[in-house]
This record gives sequence, C-alpha cells and structure tokens, in this order.
Amino acid sequence: MTSFRRVGLRPPGWSRAGQGAGACQTASVTSRLVVLGSCGAWPEPGRACSGYVLEHGGVRIVLDLGYGTLPRLLALLGSTAADGIDGVIVTHAHPDHMIDLHGLFRARWFGRRGAPAIPLFAPEPVRARLLGLEDDGEDVVRRVFDWHPLPAAPAAIGPLRLESMLLPHYLPNAGVRLSGGGLTLAYTGDTGPDPALAELGRGADLFIVDATDRAQRPVSPAALPGPALNLTAREAGEASAAAGARRLLLTHFWPDNDRQASRASAAAAFPGDIMLAEEGLEVRLG
Amino acid sequence: MTSFRRVGLRPPGWSRAGQGAGACQTASVTSRLVVLGSCGAWPEPGRACSGYVLEHGGVRIVLDLGYGTLPRLLALLGSTAADGIDGVIVTHAHPDHMIDLHGLFRARWFGRRGAPAIPLFAPEPVRARLLGLEDDGEDVVRRVFDWHPLPAAPAAIGPLRLESMLLPHYLPNAGVRLSGGGLTLAYTGDTGPDPALAELGRGADLFIVDATDRAQRPVSPAALPGPALNLTAREAGEASAAAGARRLLLTHFWPDNDRQASRASAAAAFPGDIMLAEEGLEVRLG
Repeated sequence: MTSFRRVGLRPPGWSRAGQGAGACQTASVTSRLVVLGSCGAWPEPGRACSGYVLEHGGVRIVLDLGYGTLPRLLALLGSTAADGIDGVIVTHAHPDHMIDLHGLFRARWFGRRGAPAIPLFAPEPVRARLLGLEDDGEDVVRRVFDWHPLPAAPAAIGPLRLESMLLPHYLPNAGVRLSGGGLTLAYTGDTGPDPALAELGRGADLFIVDATDRAQRPVSPAALPGPALNLTAREAGEASAAAGARRLLLTHFWPDNDRQASRASAAAAFPGDIMLAEEGLEVRLG
Repeated sequence: MTSFRRVGLRPPGWSRAGQGAGACQTASVTSRLVVLGSCGAWPEPGRACSGYVLEHGGVRIVLDLGYGTLPRLLALLGSTAADGIDGVIVTHAHPDHMIDLHGLFRARWFGRRGAPAIPLFAPEPVRARLLGLEDDGEDVVRRVFDWHPLPAAPAAIGPLRLESMLLPHYLPNAGVRLSGGGLTLAYTGDTGPDPALAELGRGADLFIVDATDRAQRPVSPAALPGPALNLTAREAGEASAAAGARRLLLTHFWPDNDRQASRASAAAAFPGDIMLAEEGLEVRLG
C-alpha cells in the first residue's frame, strides 16, 4: 500500500540540543522516499533544488544535493554530522543537483573525521567540481567520499542493486535504477527525450522523472539553443507509459511553472498514479 | 529605537501564486538587517550559513550568500527572480559565504535576462569560484553582476559609503563598513584577531562579528593548523569593545556550539547590547 504525506524539517524527537546524538539507526529505517527539493535550475522562494532520500532494505541513499538541500537533509537525519548515510548518488554536475555535496563533505570532514568514507556514485565532472570547491585538496575529499564513476556496470549499495545509463543532457547525466527487497526505483536526473528512458524505468514501482516543462516557459529560441535536453511534463508521462512504471513522481519544476498544469500534461500520456514533488513530501514504499 | 524580532520566510502578502510579481519596492524598504543564515563552515539542521540583508537609506544590500541562504533570500524578497537587490557584497571565497551566489546568478540570468547588472563587491577568488561554477562562461556572469574587487577605495551603493579592509583568514577576506543616512554597520566576514578590527567597527551602530569560537571545539591541534584565523566569542567581544561599537551581533557559529555560552563569553569583554544571529532574525535600525 502506498501513502503520501508531508514530513517536517525536524522529525519527531529531534531537538536542537540533541541534534548531535539524534541520528537515525539504519536498521529501523522506514521504506520511503523523502523529497528534499523539487526545483530545477534555482530554488523558488523557501524551496530547494533537486534532492531525495531513499530509505529501503535497511539502507539510506541520498540522490542529488542541489541548492538548499543540505539543511533539509541534516534535519531529516537529525544529525549535524550527517550520520546515517549509506550512499550518495549524484546524477550530474550542474549546481542545482550537486552544490550542497560540498557542504555534506564539510559536515563529515569537520563533524566525523576518521569515520568510514561514504560511497559516492557520480559522473566524473561531479568529482571535478567538488574538488574545485575544496581548498584542502583531493586527499581530504577521498577520506570522506569513496568515489565510483557513473555510468558503470551494476554495483551494490547494501542489498540494493544500482544500475546506471548515460542520458542526453548538456553534460554527462547518469540515469539510475535501484532495485532489491521487492522494490524498483528509477530516477532520470536531467534528460532530453530518449528511448532508453523506457528501459531505465521498466516496471518501476516509482519513477522520478525530470519535468522541467519548457513548454510552459515563454522564452525566446535564443535562450534555449540546441535540442531539448530536459523533458516536458508531457514527455515525462510518455516515458513513464513506455516504461510501464507503476507510479510517476514529477520533479525538477522550472521556477514559477504551474505544477498542476504539469500534472495534467503528464496525465494525458500516463494512466498510473502521478505525484508532484514537494519539499518534505514522503512517499511510502511497500 | 532598536527592536528585534523574527521574520518569517514569507513576508506578509507573499503568496506562491503572486511570487513573480511580489517584489518589494526599494523606496518603501524598512531600515533593518535580516539574518539569512548564522552558521559557520556548514549549516546546522534546518539552518543556513552566512548571509544577511541590509535595508537602509532606500537600498537593499546582500552580505554573503552561504549554503542554504538563497531560498531564504528569495522568500524575503518575495521574488523568484530576486528583484529588488541594489548590491551584493561577498567577504571571501569560502563556500559557506558564497556558494549560493551562483544560484543568485541563475535567478537573474534565467528569471530577468537583460535587466541591469547588480553591483557585486568581492575579493578576486570569489569571482574565480563563481566563474568555475558557470559553464556558460564569463560573459554571461558579467551581464548579471557588475564586479568590483575588494578590498578597495571607498565606493558608493546608493547613498551608502562602502569601505573595506583586508583581514587575516585562510584566504583573502574583506571586512566591510557601510555608512550613511545616520547609520554605520560593519561586518568582519571571517577573521582572526587583528587590531584593524577596532578601526573597522569604530563607533558602529551594529557590528556583525565572526564568533566561530574555537574555544568551544574539542579538536586536536592537527585539525586546526596555523594561527587562529577565526575569532572566539570572547575575541569578538574584545574587538567590539576596542571599536566602541554600540551593538554586537555574534554570528558564524560553529555547528553544535552553545550560542548562549558564546553570548556569555562576549559579554565578559563587551558592555553593550549583544545579539545572537538566528535565521530570520530582524534587527530594526534607527
């Protein structure tokens, strides 16, 4: 059974005084996806850019960390030092998907120096940008993150299998698929239309799909050169239908886009459940 | 008369539907300082790193834009496109003081392309880091920000006079002093102890001072090499006393530091009003 609700920035039992000791125990994690941020390009007022947390099969995985996501992630964890993360996946090097990764580095480097490195799966430009932000050099970053390039052959994060594929965007973007423990979740990152999306989201219980919806943006052609390298909400629905996904989570909304209009556009192409990403949205899984 | 209160992320009259049209009119701006973020190094759960907005003399100036500050700035402005900013000052290139500057670039580039460039005052490494985050190159950044290096000779932002001086930190940090319209405000950015702080904050109505308070941090010497390049709260109080400042705003708290203890440490050295920075804190000026 699936249910949706909003979760607060501060989980029950969290308090400012106790935040250092309040990290969740991985073993007690619920099976759910929590949205840290739902905006593409830059955050709307009071919101954040792309970021998600998957808790399933006894592990907690962070997917993307755009502008404004880190304080929300730490609140969800109930941990100033970002305790309780089993893996981080970053789809591509645009700042709206990865800028707060450096803040996560700092939380671990200053808050838990000497702790085991966290597996980080990301295309090479993500690593390069992270290193460009860190004045103390590559060695310290390596002590915080155990880097694995994407796309790559299937890998394991705890009991989950991570598959990845290159999708068309302005720079290398890895679509990812996590499966195990009776669940398959897929996430496009940012992508233009591509037949491979049907494979990425094949039969997924939850398909998180870029719905930047350029169709809603009154811009001059000069502002959007080249081929479409993000999806419209309609195209997100088409990709989900082609994949035979069970549920679609539309996300990466362009600031000021009409999200209900995006939902309607996607619904014209996809007959399954459609959710709109929203900061703090919790999608119960299984 | 001075008063303090918390301001919400969404000012009165702000609504999601109206956010695009809801920019404040500069002419009606209150004389106040609003804190966007109060944390040093990385944000505590639900908080943000260094960021402040000064509204005085009919202009609105942003001081620093660390992790998590941009969504709060846009909420304060009531503008997805960041309308209503007359100048931006960034003290130094550490990400906890400037990472969301790139998000502000995006808000203007995608949201108000062709609008007049916003004056940006910052040391050279800030500009270099900003350009390193922008794949579309220097020309587009120049169309959004009119860059002025710091420290520099006095400059004007509307009716306010901006003075700056180099202060000791891990990389070039510009302490700044804004005066005009019956007000003097000074801000250290990050700094080690330095006699020049007395000059920076000389007679200031409000002195915003780094209080990272290493004294509270149980760390090994190896984790803090070299001379002290941030202030303790006690040293912040001493600098304010030497400057003869009227009010002291302690900020840049190290995550998990005890802020009340920081206040007590500062009060042992500074007899004037002491405030603790807090996300959303509004300090009424004049």
